[in-house]
This record gives sequence, structure tokens and C-alpha cells, in this order.
Amino acid sequence: MASSTKYFSNEPQPNLNADEPSSTTALTLAYRTVGTPDLPAVLMPSCYGGKLDDTLPFLYTSVDNRGAPAVLANHFVIVVGMLSGSESSSPSNAHVSMGGLNFPKVTIEDNVRLQHALCRALGVEKLAAYIGFSMGGIQAYHMGVIYPDFVERIVILAGAARASWHNISFLEGPKAALVNSEDFHGGRYVEPARMGTQAFGRVYSTWALSSAWFREKNWEKLGFNSMWEYLEEEWERSLGSWDAHDLLGMLQMWQSADVSIHGPVKGDFVAALGSIQAKALVMPSRTDSYFPPEDSMEEVKHLKQGKLKIIESVWGHLAGGGAGTREDTEFIKDAVEGFLAE
Amino acid sequence: MASSTKYFSNEPQPNLNADEPSSTTALTLAYRTVGTPDLPAVLMPSCYGGKLDDTLPFLYTSVDNRGAPAVLANHFVIVVGMLSGSESSSPSNAHVSMGGLNFPKVTIEDNVRLQHALCRALGVEKLAAYIGFSMGGIQAYHMGVIYPDFVERIVILAGAARASWHNISFLEGPKAALVNSEDFHGGRYVEPARMGTQAFGRVYSTWALSSAWFREKNWEKLGFNSMWEYLEEEWERSLGSWDAHDLLGMLQMWQSADVSIHGPVKGDFVAALGSIQAKALVMPSRTDSYFPPEDSMEEVKHLKQGKLKIIESVWGHLAGGGAGTREDTEFIKDAVEGFLAE
Repeated sequence: MASSTKYFSNEPQPNLNADEPSSTTALTLAYRTVGTPDLPAVLMPSCYGGKLDDTLPFLYTSVDNRGAPAVLANHFVIVVGMLSGSESSSPSNAHVSMGGLNFPKVTIEDNVRLQHALCRALGVEKLAAYIGFSMGGIQAYHMGVIYPDFVERIVILAGAARASWHNISFLEGPKAALVNSEDFHGGRYVEPARMGTQAFGRVYSTWALSSAWFREKNWEKLGFNSMWEYLEEEWERSLGSWDAHDLLGMLQMWQSADVSIHGPVKGDFVAALGSIQAKALVMPSRTDSYFPPEDSMEEVKHLKQGKLKIIESVWGHLAGGGAGTREDTEFIKDAVEGFLAE
Repeated sequence: MASSTKYFSNEPQPNLNADEPSSTTALTLAYRTVGTPDLPAVLMPSCYGGKLDDTLPFLYTSVDNRGAPAVLANHFVIVVGMLSGSESSSPSNAHVSMGGLNFPKVTIEDNVRLQHALCRALGVEKLAAYIGFSMGGIQAYHMGVIYPDFVERIVILAGAARASWHNISFLEGPKAALVNSEDFHGGRYVEPARMGTQAFGRVYSTWALSSAWFREKNWEKLGFNSMWEYLEEEWERSLGSWDAHDLLGMLQMWQSADVSIHGPVKGDFVAALGSIQAKALVMPSRTDSYFPPEDSMEEVKHLKQGKLKIIESVWGHLAGGGAGTREDTEFIKDAVEGFLAE
């Protein structure tokens, strides 16, 4: 069982939701742990639009009822919410002095440094593995570059070491839909900007899947009567319920992600990848429109100990997070299990 | 030289921009001709967001300065604006009684029937070819199904015989951005809805290209200093200058396109394709996100006389319209030239 949600701050006094902030740069991580600290530690951060609850649960809980122990059964699992992800420090939950439009432009580096401090506070000297999906995979690469001695293995599920130009460009779409929406009011909305966030969800949705997914009408396998019902229930309504600034905060963090900022030679992507000491398992989805396998292949070339395993799925980006077919998810579980045993 | 723009209406008195409409369903096509009516006739319709000026000019004008005669030099070329495309009848130019929100939901069929009537009025008994890019390709398939005896050859450049579910879904993105925008006012805008149409352009842009295109920074080959400059100049500003209802009118026409509505067995896509008598040349772009080659391959299987030639380009959807590399466009020209000579 996961512990209840706890908080860790870079300030002595965690101030999330407090009446008075201790400083305008205080940042707090929401996290949960599973298992005991004497076991090998594994950190798993949340992804874009993800919460602690839905961060790769298939790796630490038995979801398939086959009675097999979870892949991470004998590990101390630390699940951490991403900054701006609504559970850790975010525009929506920060003190008014740094909430909404005032929230600082946090980075992937901010997340990783805070996660490192959290681990040390929990008594973790070294991570046996850092496993991330999507923006979680981006964080995994950054952990490998920023703290090369701190992590033994990184697993990148449908992620990348930087935002590609294609990423940056497509993300401009949902962003434009949101910031130009009728109820965003230049970011000074008082009521939730629902028209904006729902439009955001509608723009974002198709990118997460693949043309093959739509060709096969896979919404039917999820029990939806129509594509429209699927888009509304799974996308427009879910992302549509988020706070607009939280969505934009995560988005700018994604767009500005790049390990080459942190490597031995500033701006040298290849050198940054080469500086990673951890063994890496890189698992793109064949049909991912965010992080196509071609980008992963290029990245793996420059890793000291990188292994590529492509998830052969039509579930696009989603396959990497365990939302693809049962076979896709079993493939990930088996690969991660084998990788941890190496 | 192309003739000046002329108009053709399904009513005896063309009424475009007239003070009084002759009926609320009067529809007018804007068109131009090149060559004389005694030559074999070729019809080319405009595409989504296209104008007469930019409809496959590389097929009838010599753009490469190599002195070679244009592919369609010895043809009577009829270039026709699509309904809702701002030159033919559109929400933006219709009489107030059928303008804006009042504009009827026109279909691909409406275009094709009106084009057929235009041809007959021009003395064309049969088209030697119907060549269309993108939504122009959709129209080409429809002409082949609705008037099987009227057209000898159809050329589909990065097009399809119907809107795929993936098409329908991704188009919901720019639509959502536009209709929820601050200045759309539920469609009752008085000033142009620029925030909405520019957001539309921003959402739409990335779909038209490919991840490989961005990986190679191809905006540099177009002379832009940055991706941002490219997105602004080529997309946000261009589509952003359109009328919102014109954009939405073309969009609903695309989303509702399906030849199976018009085939021998209503709803039978394969039967509809099989009813096409024309020889068909189907040229998808390898990296097209709108109309992927997989869909074209499936369609060609069911054509009586269908030939597939894939444009091996990283320029995504755009390659099919002549906006890819010089090699891409030469490949199209050669293929069309050979096909017309068969």
C-alpha cells in the first residue's frame, strides 16, 4: 500500500497552502512512498497532466490479477508529483503572492534537484532506478545528467532528453487555444477558465494517439460508443478540469527541457548524453507523435550504456504510460523487470 | 496566362456580392481558365485555405525556369475555388441573408455538382483529368464516384476518399481553439475574430508537417531565422487573416466527406471506390499526418484502375501541394505527365 501524500520543501518549513509563504521561491513536492527505506529505492515522477495516483501504478501494484508480485515489489518506491502538476507546488495551490500569473517559471532542473534533496531526506544515498513516462522520462534523463553518481539506472518510457522542435511547435497549439479563450482573461480569470482548458484538451488529444489507433476505432475497446464520447470523457473533461496556469506551467517546463543545458559542455547534446553514468532503458512507442522512436534511437547512440526497446503499439504516446493494450503493458513490465535484475 | 476570375452560379443570375440573393441556396463558383476549350479539359479545385492563385500553379505555369513546357501546356485548365474558400460562395462574401452563421452547410457533393455544371456550361463534355491536392483530392474522388462517366482520370495528391476518424479528431483542435476564442462571440463577431483565427493557424500548423521536417529545421531552407518566425509568418498570419466562418465552413465540409454516401450501396466504402471508372493516380506523401500512405494503399486496392506513387518527402502533407522540395515537386510533375499520356 502506498503511504498517504506527504510534502517536502526546499525551505525548512513546508509552506504549501500555508497562509504566509516563507519565501517567494519556496517549492514543495507532494510524494508518496511504497515499501520500506531499507529496500533499493526507485523514484517515479508524474507526467504532464498526471497525478500521484496514476503514475505507473502497474509497476508497483498488481493490476492484472494474475497473482504475480509487482515488478517493484521489493523496492522502496517514491512517487513524486511534478511541479505545476497541481499536487506539488503549482500556480493553483501556491500562496497568492506566487500563485496564478505570479508562479515562477520552474524547470525540469528544479524538479530534479528537489527530488534529489527529498531522497537524501528520506535516507536514500543512491537510487537503484529512476523510472519516468513522458515528461517523467525527460526528468529521468535530467537526473542522469545532473546527478550522474546518484542514479544506477534510468528508464525512459515514451520520453526524451529534450523537447524537440516538433514538440515545441505542437504544444503551441493547445497553448494558443487556452490563452486566447473567452474565459482566460489574459490569465486573470477568477472562475476556472473552462472554455479554455476544455479547448486545450480537445487540441491536445489527437496528438497523444496515432492515425492507426483511430483507424481501428480503439475507443470501442475502452467501452465508448463513439469517438466523440471518448474525446469528451477522456480528454476534454479530464484536462478540462485542470487549472489553466497549471497546464501552462507544465507546458513551458516541457518546451524548455534540454539536457544539454546541464551537460559538461553547455549546449552540447551529445556530450550531455555521454555524461550519463547510469544504465539506461529507453522504450519509445512505435507510433508516438510526441517522442518518435527516431529521436530515441539517436539518443541511445550517445549513451554509455543505453538499450532501446520499442513498444510495438498503435496506442501512440499513451502506450508508454500503461494505457495501451495489456500486451503493451506486459512488455514494459517484463523489460523493466529484466533491466532491474541486470 | 490564366484568365481573370469569372463566376458561375447554379441560379440563372449569379448573385455573389449582389444586394439581393435570388434564393437562399444560390451558390456561385469562382474560377479561372487557362488555354482554349478545344484542348482536353482538366479541372483543379482549391484546397483547405487555398485560393485560385495558389492552386497547383506548378502544373500549368513554368516555375522552374528550365524552359520546359508546363505539364498542362496543351490542356484547357479550369481552376475552381472551393465553396467556403472565400472566392466562391462563402460565409464571408454571401448576402447577409445567408452570410456568417446563416451560410448553409455545403458539402463536397455541392462542389462537385456545381463544378460539373460549370464544365457543361463551358462546353466541356468530359474531363481528361481532375487533379486535386488535399481537400482537392477528396473532391477528385467524389467526382469519380458521382459522375463516373464524366472524368477519364483522377489525380489525388495527398488526399483521400473520406475524412478518416483521425482527420475528424485532429480538426476538432483548431475548431475548438477558434470557437472558444475571446473574439469569436459565438459566431456573431462584427470585427474579424483575429485571436480565434490566429489560434486556429497555430493549432493547425504542426499537423501539416512532420517530426522529421522539424528535426531537420527545414524552416531555414525557406529563409526563416527561427521556427517561431516561420510559424508566425506562414501559418498564424496567413490562416489568421481568414474569416472565421469560412475556416469553419471548409472544416465541416472536410469532416463530413465520404464517397460511400454517393456510391452504389450507401455506406459501402469499398463499393463506392469500385464504382469509379476513371483511371486514378494516388500520390500520398510518406510523412503526411492528414492522409497517411496507409489509407491511400487501402483505397487503391479497391479501385478498378488505381496506381499508387508515394512522394518520399519529410515535408508532410505540404509535399503534395508543391510546397515540398524541388525534387518532390518534380516527382509529382513527372508522374502526372506520364499519367496523362497513358
